[in-house]
Amino acid sequence: MSNLIKIGENGKKASMILGQLDQESKNIGLRTCAKALLENEDYIMKANKKDVEAAKKNGVKPSLVDRLLLTHDRICAIADGLEEVAALDDPIGEVLSMKVRPNGLTIGQKVVPLGVIGIIYESRPNVTADAFGLCFKTGNAVILKGGSVAINSNIAIVKVLRDALSSIDITADAVQLIEDTNREAVQELIRLNKYIDVIIPRGGAGLIKTVVENSSIPVIETGTGNCHIYVDEYADFNMALDIIDNAKTQRLGVCNTAESLVIHEKISKEFIPLVVDRLRAKQVEIRADEKGCSISDYCNPATEEDYGAEYLDKIISLKVVDSINDAINHINNYNTKHSDAIITKDYNNGLKFLNEVDSAAVYINASTRFTDGNEFGFGAEIGISTQKLHARGPMGLRALTTTKYIIFGNGQIR
Amino acid sequence: MSNLIKIGENGKKASMILGQLDQESKNIGLRTCAKALLENEDYIMKANKKDVEAAKKNGVKPSLVDRLLLTHDRICAIADGLEEVAALDDPIGEVLSMKVRPNGLTIGQKVVPLGVIGIIYESRPNVTADAFGLCFKTGNAVILKGGSVAINSNIAIVKVLRDALSSIDITADAVQLIEDTNREAVQELIRLNKYIDVIIPRGGAGLIKTVVENSSIPVIETGTGNCHIYVDEYADFNMALDIIDNAKTQRLGVCNTAESLVIHEKISKEFIPLVVDRLRAKQVEIRADEKGCSISDYCNPATEEDYGAEYLDKIISLKVVDSINDAINHINNYNTKHSDAIITKDYNNGLKFLNEVDSAAVYINASTRFTDGNEFGFGAEIGISTQKLHARGPMGLRALTTTKYIIFGNGQIR
Repeated sequence: MSNLIKIGENGKKASMILGQLDQESKNIGLRTCAKALLENEDYIMKANKKDVEAAKKNGVKPSLVDRLLLTHDRICAIADGLEEVAALDDPIGEVLSMKVRPNGLTIGQKVVPLGVIGIIYESRPNVTADAFGLCFKTGNAVILKGGSVAINSNIAIVKVLRDALSSIDITADAVQLIEDTNREAVQELIRLNKYIDVIIPRGGAGLIKTVVENSSIPVIETGTGNCHIYVDEYADFNMALDIIDNAKTQRLGVCNTAESLVIHEKISKEFIPLVVDRLRAKQVEIRADEKGCSISDYCNPATEEDYGAEYLDKIISLKVVDSINDAINHINNYNTKHSDAIITKDYNNGLKFLNEVDSAAVYINASTRFTDGNEFGFGAEIGISTQKLHARGPMGLRALTTTKYIIFGNGQIR
Repeated sequence: MSNLIKIGENGKKASMILGQLDQESKNIGLRTCAKALLENEDYIMKANKKDVEAAKKNGVKPSLVDRLLLTHDRICAIADGLEEVAALDDPIGEVLSMKVRPNGLTIGQKVVPLGVIGIIYESRPNVTADAFGLCFKTGNAVILKGGSVAINSNIAIVKVLRDALSSIDITADAVQLIEDTNREAVQELIRLNKYIDVIIPRGGAGLIKTVVENSSIPVIETGTGNCHIYVDEYADFNMALDIIDNAKTQRLGVCNTAESLVIHEKISKEFIPLVVDRLRAKQVEIRADEKGCSISDYCNPATEEDYGAEYLDKIISLKVVDSINDAINHINNYNTKHSDAIITKDYNNGLKFLNEVDSAAVYINASTRFTDGNEFGFGAEIGISTQKLHARGPMGLRALTTTKYIIFGNGQIR
């Protein structure tokens, strides 16, 4: 039996136990793990040091080395994260509705764990504890496959979590790490549909594409964001400038950052110089269509690829459109179904945009940067779904659950 | 460009239009289609006759030929089905919740169509119109891939539906049929994740396995059912006998039929002779473990495979267990996560079974035959999901929808 099948079986067995734990036991488990992380800071830091040194030696980019690095503050933040999850409401066991049918059968729909969740991620070791916390709170077993660059950190964190759970007689297989750092391990993992109920890939577009195209397990696709801001002919210019500035520059490397501007032709001559001034001051390059370039020399010509790009950098594309219909068509054609916003004072245009743009989150007069589990009030986030099945947009604890029908009868037959 | 990509593109374009149709237009569309099916009965029957004759000539089983056959009554039933869907509540556009965040952003979650749905099915031509009706009502475009045995019937039905929609200026691409009857067309279809949002396979275990293992599009897995009835030590014997009889024999070929009996050892000597009498009278073969066989000569020895089988025939497996824990373990090990029932008068055993059996529908003291969209009060059913993501159990109109977040701001930035 391959090692991965054994991990799958262990996960399945653990999930049967975790699904029956009461809220108090789960919260004690999370708090015990938080405490253990703090107590074992030195042990974790030592392992992390190995990863960081190896990464530097292998010429890994400084920004990636920074993601990998654990510090005292970061370990405290990870532990705090588990405490925060413990404090959240537990969705498991709630009966969403219960009705009596004409034949007397009482049918309820009860929230239950998904079972076993596989999470595939890249360099950040904090995901290891975060993902465990959310899965554990919802009664799921988790199987983690982190990036090879963080392998020593992940092994150390998972050991601390497993030992902490064992110390209070909770099955350590609530969290398992695949220590095999070969890429083939991912391919094998995503075919284990006998044991794993859902796969969540968290990382770059390449990883997500591989998983979506090859998994026999249902996948929740997360994350790439080519978010648009459409400045309507009836926009408040100051509001538009503030929102564009915020959505583009407040944080560059995240999926809810704006990557594309769409501007109504009627206001383009007046507005484009204003937005150029604002973005030039922040060193943001603008790649525009012919009309945009003809209005401001600051703009560089955009290629077809620019309209679909998720830059995660100080670059934004710009397209001038003739009408709100053009704007909506352009956005639906190039967006990644993540987040898009209209800036307008017009009632009909606002509602039309909300109705017709096909994205997880559609905004009137606000920054796309709000697409986030905490900003939405979920208290925690496992990722942002850009697919339509099961969960769409920021995913809180509820996205890690399913339901089952519970039916109370007294002898009913058909 | 391949023909299938063209169909995908047409579906995507149609879905943008259908998603914006109001309820009245959709209901007029459904009623116009219902009328057109009745008016074109001769045309459809002529096409169906070709399929039926070819099937008979090719030695297709009589039960399959019967599924394929259309009659005046069956065409009326198909048209009535569309009328019934028109009469159902439209889930699209409902805002499930809307809250104001501390920063003044108002965030709502609105029900919207999935987009483009691919449905792959086998011999029954009635699925062609039924699936269209449910998808159309929920604002989705549908791409149908029926079995080759029904190809002429399907072409005729889809032509009637498309002409009817065109006659009232609704895009005919709301429903498209893949006329290519090669198996490769299925393989190509389930990789079109650029155009299709979800694939629902309806048919035998082989078809479903192929789709689940090869699709790059999210799949809703439907259907196979190895449903269990567990007769607890505290069961009412008469109730147990009536429920077993009903769940096994009321309809043999459907997924919510019982295929497995689990009996507590303490009552086995008394109960097994009773259940043997009841099932022998209906010519049902019983395949039992050693204990079962030692109690009644009527039982044949079961193999390991019997416990996992979905017979869809006059056969049932029987296993004697020592405890309710054994029963639950046996069921969770062999079931298909569809429907399972306990017969008991004991409060704790009933609740324990409800909590611990991992199935879409778990019953106390009722027949598994109730797992059905109509019996659950949904008014219509697109299938029964046996997976945990998105929808679980009988799927009504809501399973064909997703949500999007709509956010109303007045200039909020982070």
